[in-house]
Amino acid sequence: MGIVDQILAGDVRATARVLRDIDDQVPTIHPILKQLYPHTGKAFIIGFTGSPGVGKSTLVDQLTIHYRKQGLTVGILAVDPTSPFTGGAILGDRIRMQRHFLDDGVFIRSLATRGHFGGLTKSTNDMINVLDAMGKDIILVETVGVGQDEVEIANSAHTTVLVTIPGMGDEVQAIKAGIMEIGNIFVVNKADREGSRKTIRELMNLIELGLRHQGQNGWEPPIIQTEAIKSRGIEELGEAIQKHRDFLLANDKSNLRDVLVKRARTQLLEVLKEEALRTLMKRIETRGIALDTLVDQIVEKSTDPYSVVQDLLNNELP
Amino acid sequence: MGIVDQILAGDVRATARVLRDIDDQVPTIHPILKQLYPHTGKAFIIGFTGSPGVGKSTLVDQLTIHYRKQGLTVGILAVDPTSPFTGGAILGDRIRMQRHFLDDGVFIRSLATRGHFGGLTKSTNDMINVLDAMGKDIILVETVGVGQDEVEIANSAHTTVLVTIPGMGDEVQAIKAGIMEIGNIFVVNKADREGSRKTIRELMNLIELGLRHQGQNGWEPPIIQTEAIKSRGIEELGEAIQKHRDFLLANDKSNLRDVLVKRARTQLLEVLKEEALRTLMKRIETRGIALDTLVDQIVEKSTDPYSVVQDLLNNELP
Repeated sequence: MGIVDQILAGDVRATARVLRDIDDQVPTIHPILKQLYPHTGKAFIIGFTGSPGVGKSTLVDQLTIHYRKQGLTVGILAVDPTSPFTGGAILGDRIRMQRHFLDDGVFIRSLATRGHFGGLTKSTNDMINVLDAMGKDIILVETVGVGQDEVEIANSAHTTVLVTIPGMGDEVQAIKAGIMEIGNIFVVNKADREGSRKTIRELMNLIELGLRHQGQNGWEPPIIQTEAIKSRGIEELGEAIQKHRDFLLANDKSNLRDVLVKRARTQLLEVLKEEALRTLMKRIETRGIALDTLVDQIVEKSTDPYSVVQDLLNNELP
Repeated sequence: MGIVDQILAGDVRATARVLRDIDDQVPTIHPILKQLYPHTGKAFIIGFTGSPGVGKSTLVDQLTIHYRKQGLTVGILAVDPTSPFTGGAILGDRIRMQRHFLDDGVFIRSLATRGHFGGLTKSTNDMINVLDAMGKDIILVETVGVGQDEVEIANSAHTTVLVTIPGMGDEVQAIKAGIMEIGNIFVVNKADREGSRKTIRELMNLIELGLRHQGQNGWEPPIIQTEAIKSRGIEELGEAIQKHRDFLLANDKSNLRDVLVKRARTQLLEVLKEEALRTLMKRIETRGIALDTLVDQIVEKSTDPYSVVQDLLNNELP
């Protein structure tokens, strides 16, 4: 049985191998992804974003238990782009692995690296597709940072959950400008902490202020209070996610279609970026041009990045 | 006088126009950047990174005052990738503008957008180069998020300041894995808050644990306590930055060279990525292929992103 069939049959080792190759940006992975693609589209994808320390991992764990109780299988992708050097995501991964170790219905993987060629968004989308094709019912995507990459990754989900905690008033101000618009559901975690009401009030004001006009097709984001560490509020969060899912499926799935188009466009552009650069780099190498020499020349100011690229493109894209 | 000469003469309006074109990814900007490039390399670039709400903007403002007192001119770039929708960086920008409005020695600009083609890293580097060529002595680059983009942007600086606040113990854990390695100086802002000592102790432990082995050439990151809002600790931070600058210039500038090589390599790859994609997209358009149609086909699963890109590259890069 080939690797594609193994993945379609839910084989964990084959899946793990392909996910590792995606993370390592092995170019031979694309023919496999191509064959898996027609088998995607069945999983429901839920993204979690928010600053470090707000408790996203615990929430994801609790939701996993929630979905497992319903008999649904779960794939978890933890995107930790803040660890380009030491691969720090691995530790958190292992801790989790222990919890769900004996449960075949849960597959966990973290992405820590982003190579020269591709974006984290591309790798995450590729991995989502593999877990989808593998047959996972629910895919939970957790991002660690709150930068542009994380916004894009959240955009790959059907439902995006924005997690915050009380007492980060500054943060609510800081995130309101842009990242809030992508939140379909707001979670105030650690809701027993001081300042909880204030945070909720602020979020309500922001929603009131016009979030409903911001491309969510009339969906009004609910605010859910949780204490993930005590399993409190998880049912409510599960219900809110279900409601958003129903919303996407309503009106002959027209809302869902908007999400899928956005995702397909992102995927196409990301693959295009990666492959265009890879193709160019390969040709540069073939022609015996050493990138290091060009870099040295730029440092010495005998040339500049713009001239170098112009030369390369003129010669390589005749 | 052409726009290049205007910028070299320190003209604010010409500079603002070019920065706007960079943010808008206007392709005709490259010839201008090319001419400015030989005039770069004089400014000292300081990057500030950390979660929203830790007080980076206030620190940057205070340091601006610090450098202005020394008679140095300052350029400020505020990178706010979390605001792709409403351009939220603008508000903070305006508040700052008021403070430094009458001071010709300060130039402030924020980047809020990231287009389809280029990365935020590229735009930021381009803007740094313009402010450098324009004659600013010090360039302060403040990133709002803590994702991979922000790590890369911080890498564009000569000195990277990592800002945190007390009581974010979880965060220290979360960031330790990767982002810590890029910090040349750690700042505990709002140091009067409860938990300050604990945060400092944790940071010290992390530095002790092996940061010095992580590619900083023997530099040991100091921890500076500040209360930026009361201007406390700013002198100490200024001194720490000066020490790191001296460190870079020591040993016949060999440490500085490492920074410059890393930066030139990043810049080259980022320009290459942007231009390769732009060239391809132009040709796709010229051939009358509608991207929307391809996206629809991907949504319908009659094709997939990998096949589409393969076709495009085979035809476009013969």
